[in-house]
Amino acid sequence: MRGSHSSVFDSELYSSLFTQPEMKQIWSDENLIRCWLEFEVTIARVQAELDIIPAQAAEEIASTCRSLDIDWERLAKETRIVGMAIKPLVDQITDAGTPLVKKYLHWGCTTQDLLDTALAMRMKQTLLLLRRQLMELGENLKTMALEHKATVMVARTNSVDASATTWGLQVSSYLSELTRHIHRLDNLYPTATTGLFGGAVGNLASVGHDGIATRNNLMKSLGLSKPIGMMNASQDNIVQVIQFFALVHGTLCRIANDVETMGRPSFAELREGEGGGGSSTMPHKTNPRASNMIQTLSRMGWMYASGATNLLDQQDVRAASMRVLNWSLVPESALSLSTSLERACRLIAHLVVDKQKMRDNFSASKNFIMSESVSMRLADKIGRDQGYHIMKTLVKEADGTQDLQQLVLGNAQIRETLTEEEIVAACDPLSYLGCNDALIDETLAFFDATDKNITK
Amino acid sequence: MRGSHSSVFDSELYSSLFTQPEMKQIWSDENLIRCWLEFEVTIARVQAELDIIPAQAAEEIASTCRSLDIDWERLAKETRIVGMAIKPLVDQITDAGTPLVKKYLHWGCTTQDLLDTALAMRMKQTLLLLRRQLMELGENLKTMALEHKATVMVARTNSVDASATTWGLQVSSYLSELTRHIHRLDNLYPTATTGLFGGAVGNLASVGHDGIATRNNLMKSLGLSKPIGMMNASQDNIVQVIQFFALVHGTLCRIANDVETMGRPSFAELREGEGGGGSSTMPHKTNPRASNMIQTLSRMGWMYASGATNLLDQQDVRAASMRVLNWSLVPESALSLSTSLERACRLIAHLVVDKQKMRDNFSASKNFIMSESVSMRLADKIGRDQGYHIMKTLVKEADGTQDLQQLVLGNAQIRETLTEEEIVAACDPLSYLGCNDALIDETLAFFDATDKNITK
Amino acid sequence: MRGSHSSVFDSELYSSLFTQPEMKQIWSDENLIRCWLEFEVTIARVQAELDIIPAQAAEEIASTCRSLDIDWERLAKETRIVGMAIKPLVDQITDAGTPLVKKYLHWGCTTQDLLDTALAMRMKQTLLLLRRQLMELGENLKTMALEHKATVMVARTNSVDASATTWGLQVSSYLSELTRHIHRLDNLYPTATTGLFGGAVGNLASVGHDGIATRNNLMKSLGLSKPIGMMNASQDNIVQVIQFFALVHGTLCRIANDVETMGRPSFAELREGEGGGGSSTMPHKTNPRASNMIQTLSRMGWMYASGATNLLDQQDVRAASMRVLNWSLVPESALSLSTSLERACRLIAHLVVDKQKMRDNFSASKNFIMSESVSMRLADKIGRDQGYHIMKTLVKEADGTQDLQQLVLGNAQIRETLTEEEIVAACDPLSYLGCNDALIDETLAFFDATDKNITK
Amino acid sequence: MRGSHSSVFDSELYSSLFTQPEMKQIWSDENLIRCWLEFEVTIARVQAELDIIPAQAAEEIASTCRSLDIDWERLAKETRIVGMAIKPLVDQITDAGTPLVKKYLHWGCTTQDLLDTALAMRMKQTLLLLRRQLMELGENLKTMALEHKATVMVARTNSVDASATTWGLQVSSYLSELTRHIHRLDNLYPTATTGLFGGAVGNLASVGHDGIATRNNLMKSLGLSKPIGMMNASQDNIVQVIQFFALVHGTLCRIANDVETMGRPSFAELREGEGGGGSSTMPHKTNPRASNMIQTLSRMGWMYASGATNLLDQQDVRAASMRVLNWSLVPESALSLSTSLERACRLIAHLVVDKQKMRDNFSASKNFIMSESVSMRLADKIGRDQGYHIMKTLVKEADGTQDLQQLVLGNAQIRETLTEEEIVAACDPLSYLGCNDALIDETLAFFDATDKNITK
Repeated sequence: MRGSHSSVFDSELYSSLFTQPEMKQIWSDENLIRCWLEFEVTIARVQAELDIIPAQAAEEIASTCRSLDIDWERLAKETRIVGMAIKPLVDQITDAGTPLVKKYLHWGCTTQDLLDTALAMRMKQTLLLLRRQLMELGENLKTMALEHKATVMVARTNSVDASATTWGLQVSSYLSELTRHIHRLDNLYPTATTGLFGGAVGNLASVGHDGIATRNNLMKSLGLSKPIGMMNASQDNIVQVIQFFALVHGTLCRIANDVETMGRPSFAELREGEGGGGSSTMPHKTNPRASNMIQTLSRMGWMYASGATNLLDQQDVRAASMRVLNWSLVPESALSLSTSLERACRLIAHLVVDKQKMRDNFSASKNFIMSESVSMRLADKIGRDQGYHIMKTLVKEADGTQDLQQLVLGNAQIRETLTEEEIVAACDPLSYLGCNDALIDETLAFFDATDKNITK
Repeated sequence: MRGSHSSVFDSELYSSLFTQPEMKQIWSDENLIRCWLEFEVTIARVQAELDIIPAQAAEEIASTCRSLDIDWERLAKETRIVGMAIKPLVDQITDAGTPLVKKYLHWGCTTQDLLDTALAMRMKQTLLLLRRQLMELGENLKTMALEHKATVMVARTNSVDASATTWGLQVSSYLSELTRHIHRLDNLYPTATTGLFGGAVGNLASVGHDGIATRNNLMKSLGLSKPIGMMNASQDNIVQVIQFFALVHGTLCRIANDVETMGRPSFAELREGEGGGGSSTMPHKTNPRASNMIQTLSRMGWMYASGATNLLDQQDVRAASMRVLNWSLVPESALSLSTSLERACRLIAHLVVDKQKMRDNFSASKNFIMSESVSMRLADKIGRDQGYHIMKTLVKEADGTQDLQQLVLGNAQIRETLTEEEIVAACDPLSYLGCNDALIDETLAFFDATDKNITK
Repeated sequence: MRGSHSSVFDSELYSSLFTQPEMKQIWSDENLIRCWLEFEVTIARVQAELDIIPAQAAEEIASTCRSLDIDWERLAKETRIVGMAIKPLVDQITDAGTPLVKKYLHWGCTTQDLLDTALAMRMKQTLLLLRRQLMELGENLKTMALEHKATVMVARTNSVDASATTWGLQVSSYLSELTRHIHRLDNLYPTATTGLFGGAVGNLASVGHDGIATRNNLMKSLGLSKPIGMMNASQDNIVQVIQFFALVHGTLCRIANDVETMGRPSFAELREGEGGGGSSTMPHKTNPRASNMIQTLSRMGWMYASGATNLLDQQDVRAASMRVLNWSLVPESALSLSTSLERACRLIAHLVVDKQKMRDNFSASKNFIMSESVSMRLADKIGRDQGYHIMKTLVKEADGTQDLQQLVLGNAQIRETLTEEEIVAACDPLSYLGCNDALIDETLAFFDATDKNITK
Repeated sequence: MRGSHSSVFDSELYSSLFTQPEMKQIWSDENLIRCWLEFEVTIARVQAELDIIPAQAAEEIASTCRSLDIDWERLAKETRIVGMAIKPLVDQITDAGTPLVKKYLHWGCTTQDLLDTALAMRMKQTLLLLRRQLMELGENLKTMALEHKATVMVARTNSVDASATTWGLQVSSYLSELTRHIHRLDNLYPTATTGLFGGAVGNLASVGHDGIATRNNLMKSLGLSKPIGMMNASQDNIVQVIQFFALVHGTLCRIANDVETMGRPSFAELREGEGGGGSSTMPHKTNPRASNMIQTLSRMGWMYASGATNLLDQQDVRAASMRVLNWSLVPESALSLSTSLERACRLIAHLVVDKQKMRDNFSASKNFIMSESVSMRLADKIGRDQGYHIMKTLVKEADGTQDLQQLVLGNAQIRETLTEEEIVAACDPLSYLGCNDALIDETLAFFDATDKNITK
């Protein structure tokens, strides 16, 4: 029904702001059912190969599953009663199936085997998509870092103008984090894509002979990692993924924070270029919608990570309550991250960088932020401690009419130590960028060394 | 499209487990649009009454809004671009309207006025529904507490059998919390239902003359509380509601925890009676689905409360990023709580209490849990310290063949102090329920004193 | 031992940044022991008055407790073994006591009675201190709001310059939140200061006759609220306090965010004046330490609130694990809030407000942020929709050389509608402050109506 | 002063329950100062080797730092004013030093370099200690899993008796998680032990020539990983560690949950054996203190992980407020985890496993939990669907007087399909343990393949 949805992920108004289309498809009901059916088809084939069930049964299960016309109303209704959707689905396949299907479908399986294996299947799709998005954002950042390697701007620490830096170095610092995230993803990929097959209580008792072989062949066929030992109560692999998502949000949020701050009219160094964001009442105003949405989505991602640890509060062979949590946490956290990555890619691609304004803001400080630079030149001659104190006093007594260079040139104590040329050089930001280029280069090399695809 | 949803709240498979129908309607897109339209109609009427806009304009705005046929595709598309849905909606009304509508619609309003006031409108609907649900659950608990006032069971502390109590007293302890929740709801109702009307930067500058009167009349017409001062950046009232929801989840989770534990086959004192919960592979097994879902929903509720504090991280007149968070947090938290309340009502209504098993479990302990009772009788005569130590030694040296009464009767040191009658009485749980009835009565009186409706 | 501490609250280096002295005393080990001893003295006196124990016993218990020389090493050692400190303390009193003390000390009490009642006693001290701090900050804010009622500044929304406002109105918006917090504190004070006395399993069985009277007299003597029914598993009152702390942190964080942003050199409208904050290497730099610490402390407070909901995950008559959590959560959250309040008081008291810079920043925008003001004047004559579009186009086509007034004056379409006088007036920020004064006044009145002391 | 502490980590009463001694030393003030001094000594030596400062200066810096007698009062006082402790410490060294020390100490360094590098140094100590603890717990679990490979017990899922399993398999499932945690630790060790050296704004400008070489030599000398690019705002490596701690807590909490539940008197299958835990009023009662403390500590660990994501909310070159958070989060989270690991080691080492009671509880179910076993035997002959339904009906109609075997033997429909021998075998738990041994063996092999030490 039009307008009946209530979550931002499915809302007709808002879903475009909170979902990335491919990710939405991955976590749709339809893909869930598809994964479950693929599980049933595959386990039957594997069991047939091991002579656990007749080959004919596997074929008929496959053909029934592939042609199944889901009765969604019945599925929803029975799910409500049972509390889980597996049995209702198995019943629909059974009803639609031949006698062999009725006899051998879902052989030795338990609800959890399907729930967790289908989760791993969609997790695999999710991680592959996210990795692609991470690489794309990385490329965008790399391009920008290279372009602005020498774009001088005010370096700010603790919200105060500190010294000189370049926009390229700042952008490269995002890329350094991003590259670590790609490594993290590759590290957790094998565990995050571990399926489950253990029967009712995880010991494969219901599976009959060849339990381990069945399990291993099933996972291989599905392209998943095989579990080690009995993992029914273990949710560490899933929680780790949601925690990882939170780390990635951190980098996106940093980018958004910087764009928002540097885009404030008093800075005007950056501007979102994707369009939109107009105010409904103030004609002159454009809001930083991309940055704001990325900030919003990061809080959602951090919240999911905080909720995810509850999944670990397990008991016995397994406990349902904490597992059902992942029905909500995993899709919402995957959607939030992919949406934010997509938005960040667009943000960087369209970002308007005003190099002149960056330089103007630098000059507007009357170069006082070069005080450390002068202080270090003094330190070379008279020591760090004394150099710091001379400059501290000089800066403290400044009345704001002169810029730093004038002030320093006019100070007798300093002039005993430094020549005019040395002072002029010390006040030039380009002379005080340190290892700017080497740092950018090592970061780009770090990113470039990343494999293009997941390496297991 | 069938199967395209991805959140549990809108999923065709799962939404029935995660939503309560009335609450889902409250937080639907459709009700959101309805509230915004009601805002536009009402502000126009109020402004007409104050001679700010022509009466005819107000009438035409009302009639345009009431007959508006929303173009959902266009609304979604423009929302995606603008980042907010208000301007797109205002554009649709404007397009559909007469010249007077085009001229006077949305007069002096800003996007936030509509967002926050419509939030307050739906918050009001939400709190009224939740209060009804709380009262209903309270009635169910009251009935059960009365019925089991004298149903003796093992009192357990720190998961260990401790002494004797009644099921009625335990149930009344849920009711005590629930009654406090109703008081909390009544306390926060006036602030939680505070609307916003301040124009672009909250000072009513765009509203023209009679700003305060316009604001106050608007809120009165909408049945909302009026704001005090400039509240554009303030989210404390909303966060408080989500925090409150978390407290209510606590009580529901306690009930679920107890039903789950006391329903374990080794206890078998309670059993969920609503049906469903069958295992897909184990014919003998019925899972405590209601308890498990309530536990799941409580973690969701607690997670939302943890995410909600981010809303407070505001700056300037207002900051969009942290406000947009509430588009997701408020609906999901309201849905989770109302779903859990509904499930808890059903759980209590159908709960099967096995009084005999409660008594059997008591006896199975060989009455050792009456050791404090005997210890206190001894204390009356020889002091707390000595009484405790005699019993501690006695219990420590017991070999498990005798029950407590036999053991105590056979102890020479105790027999010097207590008669056989006193010992037999001390070992009888009914003799050691303390103020059981008075405590239940004062709790029921506390609940009964609650107003049937919200008192402002 | 020097330097052996590991938490910021007790660290010799850091504790001054993370603790407020009075609050630290309230949550010290020493005050904890003092509250427990006061409990034992008081319960004995109450029981003597009800003829449950001899009057002489109560006197001797009082005198033993008052002169007790705690053996801290033994207490620590036994606490480690037992897992709780009550029994070890009771043993020390017993050892030091007369025969009557040995006989009647801790009569009918259980560990939880002391733990929870001493928590309520310290909660009472905590809330009284916090209320004093809230009132003090409120007074500071009120003074500043009054002083800057007409201090015009740029109103910023979503980090973008929006229109005109005053610093006084912004400050009053903090005060509006703060006043609500004081009301919240008063609302939760009675429940937050509810003691516990129920004996081993909460039904007062071990207390003997007159259980309810004993409980009620005890609470009255200790200045606490009496519990209603059996509350052993209930932690809602405590969690609510920690959640409330999080709300207060929100207001302090807003203040800190604004001071930090408006203190950035590109704004330079505000400056922290309390001294300190120097950089170890950059002579020119002063960091906004107060704002930064308040932001840090707010995240701690929000984190505690997120952890606090775990306290609600109770079962049976009570469960130890989730109760022990409050040993860490309550002190740390109380310390964080009182420290932040103290810092915020100092911040506001010493804040340097640069009115001229506020006005300069306004002018620097070439008054473009008055576009809504002009737009509304146009709207009065030609309608909101058309007025908005004319201004939108005008602003879009501006080349940055003219200010808004020049631009508007030069626009033929507008000049057909507005006179020069109207245009000049519309571009003057003082003409477009709306209900600035009325909003400030109603906020101050709201604060002034607050009782000076807690009203139960 | 006696009794003046307020955090559980430093409390004289409670610290033994919340700290592990080695970890407490690592995060003490004293070790913090020691790490900072080591940084100053090492950077001087490295700079001397690169001819940036005179070799004599490095020697004198080393000797001054090593013999420094910290004035703790002055340090605390100045830290309070400055807001950071580095400058106050540098001042004390400078004051105590020779002219060369005054001249070259802290050369080109900034406060953050010391803060973050000392954090990495202590993180290294922390991870090495935790890895040792994880290995120790792993060995304990391995021993227990082997010992109980054939100890039959009830397998429980969703809190309901499900089928047969062994205690050894359940224990091995903890070990599987634990082994993954060791791998995770090894994976994050290199990034978590990354130091920082970048000067005031991260670009090594203040360091002078040879910036990259200085940085790299410094990290090598300190045994840390070198940073890649500019990492001043990056907190991902630290947050990842705290998130990792939360995962480990999950495993410990699972163990505690199971010990608590299986130790309930109605189960009595497990019992904590470390002593302590007595009730202050109930002589018969021993509380599961170890399990309860582990559960408490896990909630603390999860809370820290939820707070840690705030560290990621960075801006500019760096932002102080979110960095200062780690002063509290990292020590508390490290202490909580090491304390819990130590307690879990002791818990497992002393755990009393009652094999007979496990078997008795199994029998008490009248073997109904073998229904799946019978159902699968039937399925072999007549298909899964029909086998399930026959057993479902049989179990449903049972009146509780007969055990499963009797019931099945008496069912005509089943007897057509299964012989008496087959039925008796199907009702024997030992016949239905599936791949119990293979699953345990693969888990132990997984653990045994772990390197004894961290592999970078």
